[in-house]
Amino acid sequence: MSALPPVSAENERKSSRTRRRLLDAAAKLFKERGYAGTRQEDIADAAAIRAASVYYHFSSKEELMGEVLDHGIARCFDAVTASVDALGPEASFRARLQAAVAAHLDMLLRHGDYTAANIRSFGQVPEPIRRRHWPLREAYGDYWRVLLESGQRSGELQQGADLSLLRMLLLGSVNWAIEWYDPRRKTADQIAVTVVGMFLDGVAGEADGVTDTSGKVVALNRSK
Amino acid sequence: MSALPPVSAENERKSSRTRRRLLDAAAKLFKERGYAGTRQEDIADAAAIRAASVYYHFSSKEELMGEVLDHGIARCFDAVTASVDALGPEASFRARLQAAVAAHLDMLLRHGDYTAANIRSFGQVPEPIRRRHWPLREAYGDYWRVLLESGQRSGELQQGADLSLLRMLLLGSVNWAIEWYDPRRKTADQIAVTVVGMFLDGVAGEADGVTDTSGKVVALNRSK
Repeated sequence: MSALPPVSAENERKSSRTRRRLLDAAAKLFKERGYAGTRQEDIADAAAIRAASVYYHFSSKEELMGEVLDHGIARCFDAVTASVDALGPEASFRARLQAAVAAHLDMLLRHGDYTAANIRSFGQVPEPIRRRHWPLREAYGDYWRVLLESGQRSGELQQGADLSLLRMLLLGSVNWAIEWYDPRRKTADQIAVTVVGMFLDGVAGEADGVTDTSGKVVALNRSK
Repeated sequence: MSALPPVSAENERKSSRTRRRLLDAAAKLFKERGYAGTRQEDIADAAAIRAASVYYHFSSKEELMGEVLDHGIARCFDAVTASVDALGPEASFRARLQAAVAAHLDMLLRHGDYTAANIRSFGQVPEPIRRRHWPLREAYGDYWRVLLESGQRSGELQQGADLSLLRMLLLGSVNWAIEWYDPRRKTADQIAVTVVGMFLDGVAGEADGVTDTSGKVVALNRSK
């Protein structure tokens, strides 16, 4: 086997910058035009990189899409675990949930192109790429599942609540922010406070009564 | 001016069926491939209608997209108002909210292609089409705003709550269902009960305490 030329640290940095530029451009185009509406050449153009050089980094549009999907989730996952771990093992479930929601939302909004590409294009992506991306997505979902379960164990979350449904509703309310978020109005942290307050305490007023769908009051549930 | 040939009722029914077939096919393709990734000819093929005949109904892909967007919202809007109105004027805010969420979710899931096309393609749609669609979207948002305001007025929703943020969080948690809904597990009605319970009452357990983000308990908020 002939020896490969040594890779200098400088070359490696440059290569990783180029990779990153390609991924950013791909995420933006997938967001704007969808997966089917984007060609690998468009991505090269948008990143101002020669099409031939793109192939050095990514063999296909499929591979670029796969990386965009993985990056979006991996970043959220890292930020959320770091934020929750920083609270230490004594933190309450509410505090950990608050930290997790704030970190997830912050990443979601800061890297909005990746998030939107994920949301808008996931259903358009060929099956093999989805399959390869799936374990990471599941691992992240599992993290939230375990977090909610810990709240149920400590008694801070209702016993008997359907945690898998609640997880979807909670993450849905947060993920939807990419459709309406306006940075001039509220920070991600402020929104996270409202989300967790709504999720755990509800927003019913004092006059609230539990009624069935015909409108009949069947029980009063507030004792403030 | 020459007289147009009379349009028979039979012809009109046929024409409206064809229109509907085209819209259904367009919604499905916009969902699967995005707006940019779909050509008008693909829509004609998928609906098994000759490309020339498509132009009789829709002058362009833009017009088809506009109709798909409008239909998705209009159906939800109709279903929600019908459901809420059926409760009568004496119904509690909780009962009206419950009916609205259930109807919105049901329409969302039953006409999933329109919803998904709306969610996945709205950001890719040319500005003029978005502008034309905007008033209907706003009117529907307004309906929810007025509904939540009525709850605040009657004291059934917290005074001082940020209703515009809560509305986004509530609809976000519901809209996200198109990403995870599995009809074998729960009906739209059952999910709506959980959504409204979470929204109004929260899902905190008895051991819950309100803490700041450092994890320190600052107040106990349950008096069950």
